[in-house]
Amino acid sequence: MATQVEIICVGNELLIGKTLNTNAQWLAKRAVSLGATVRRITVVGDDVDEIASAVREALERKPRFIITTGGLGPTFDDKTLEGVAKALNRNLVLNSKALQMVKEKYEEYAEAGRLDSAELTPHRVKMAMLPEGAEPLPNPVGTAPGVRLEIDGTTIIALPGVPAEMEAIFESSVVELVKKETGDLTFFETSIYVDDIMESTLAPLIDITMRDNPYVYIKSHPKGEEKKPYIEIHFSTTAKDSKVAKDRLGKAIVQLSELIKEKGGKVKTFKI
Amino acid sequence: MATQVEIICVGNELLIGKTLNTNAQWLAKRAVSLGATVRRITVVGDDVDEIASAVREALERKPRFIITTGGLGPTFDDKTLEGVAKALNRNLVLNSKALQMVKEKYEEYAEAGRLDSAELTPHRVKMAMLPEGAEPLPNPVGTAPGVRLEIDGTTIIALPGVPAEMEAIFESSVVELVKKETGDLTFFETSIYVDDIMESTLAPLIDITMRDNPYVYIKSHPKGEEKKPYIEIHFSTTAKDSKVAKDRLGKAIVQLSELIKEKGGKVKTFKI
Repeated sequence: MATQVEIICVGNELLIGKTLNTNAQWLAKRAVSLGATVRRITVVGDDVDEIASAVREALERKPRFIITTGGLGPTFDDKTLEGVAKALNRNLVLNSKALQMVKEKYEEYAEAGRLDSAELTPHRVKMAMLPEGAEPLPNPVGTAPGVRLEIDGTTIIALPGVPAEMEAIFESSVVELVKKETGDLTFFETSIYVDDIMESTLAPLIDITMRDNPYVYIKSHPKGEEKKPYIEIHFSTTAKDSKVAKDRLGKAIVQLSELIKEKGGKVKTFKI
Repeated sequence: MATQVEIICVGNELLIGKTLNTNAQWLAKRAVSLGATVRRITVVGDDVDEIASAVREALERKPRFIITTGGLGPTFDDKTLEGVAKALNRNLVLNSKALQMVKEKYEEYAEAGRLDSAELTPHRVKMAMLPEGAEPLPNPVGTAPGVRLEIDGTTIIALPGVPAEMEAIFESSVVELVKKETGDLTFFETSIYVDDIMESTLAPLIDITMRDNPYVYIKSHPKGEEKKPYIEIHFSTTAKDSKVAKDRLGKAIVQLSELIKEKGGKVKTFKI
């Protein structure tokens, strides 16, 4: 049974196209590399009701993990934890462990001369207001702690939107949680690149190869310019053993390559 | 009343982090520049039920437009139209206008020597199987037509996943539909960059400025390295008149810049 992950990215900057959603790509790639399956990515704005709806809808699909990014900071539009609390009908409460983490950060900044005062203003305290029952996750490179919350078989993880902070908290606190679920499973992938064949001619050849290789997923991606098109064919499988995975991928690649050559297509070199 | 748009991106490559979702950013930016509001972006895999759920859930929120990308091609895993049809309880039927479009493309490719035969194989005909009641949208740079479908006040637009094809169909067939709804409204935005102030110190200053400038949305984005941080402050407004918009943004920028300087922050130069 696959370990399902849903990703919810929060931020108006994503909905106006100001920011490219590299966080979603990073998280998806990382979760998949750990053997999990990402089922859905949802992007909503800095709005409590929108965040709450997205979280509630994800919970109904019962993924093992829901990972949110963005909206944990000190400003008025950092609303992710309010949205999560609303989705769960819980209150936001001052978490003493989180407050200690925030306090230590500001003391450190003040000592380094980056701040006049380490005073815990309301905007700073806000970062320690977590949904009831949540645990803070230390932020190795920034101020706002991440958040972990267990509910009915789903672990909700809230991470900041600043990529370096999101990645650091994921690596230090989330990887081990995901690994515990996925065990030894790993995702293996490779691509070949083909020329002189159209995607519609390739399509039935992929059908045949996938039928004969039931554990390998094959997807074609048209690339290049209109005048000089080529197709990337991506092969992937999930397995415990890298030898098993490479054998599976190799067998599928050989079969499809031969079918492509029969149709006059050119297969460029590749490595697994 | 804002013209709401939802974007649904279809493709396993997005859920495994193989592909960065530049399509969502491009569509969001373009829709917003035309005066629309993007409410949600959803990414699902190449799975009929997942696509159908995402479309059904979006329809329940009654946006003016739902724009999908990906999954219109000739391969087995191009399932977007099957998902849309399922969401609407409609059949997929052979659309004669779409078939004519596809036929002309393959004849063109065969004449150009890129194909042995322009024969309409099942995989090619597949691209002309549209949900009942749908209209094809010409694809100026590729093979699979886009699709337009009206349902209960929402226009569903299905675009290919290849960026050049998606953009070309959007420009040639979708821009005018969005513009008809948004009229003269346009989105205006600009940023200033500040140093020597922490986001938590900035937060209450943004609160004051937004209270005094109700039509301007202001959001801070921490940037730079940990050792040399700076903050981008993004100002935006939607208006019919560029002079009105610039006056609004200018007034908010001046007020916030003064507040920042009072707190010892440095505001770098900017232009509107």
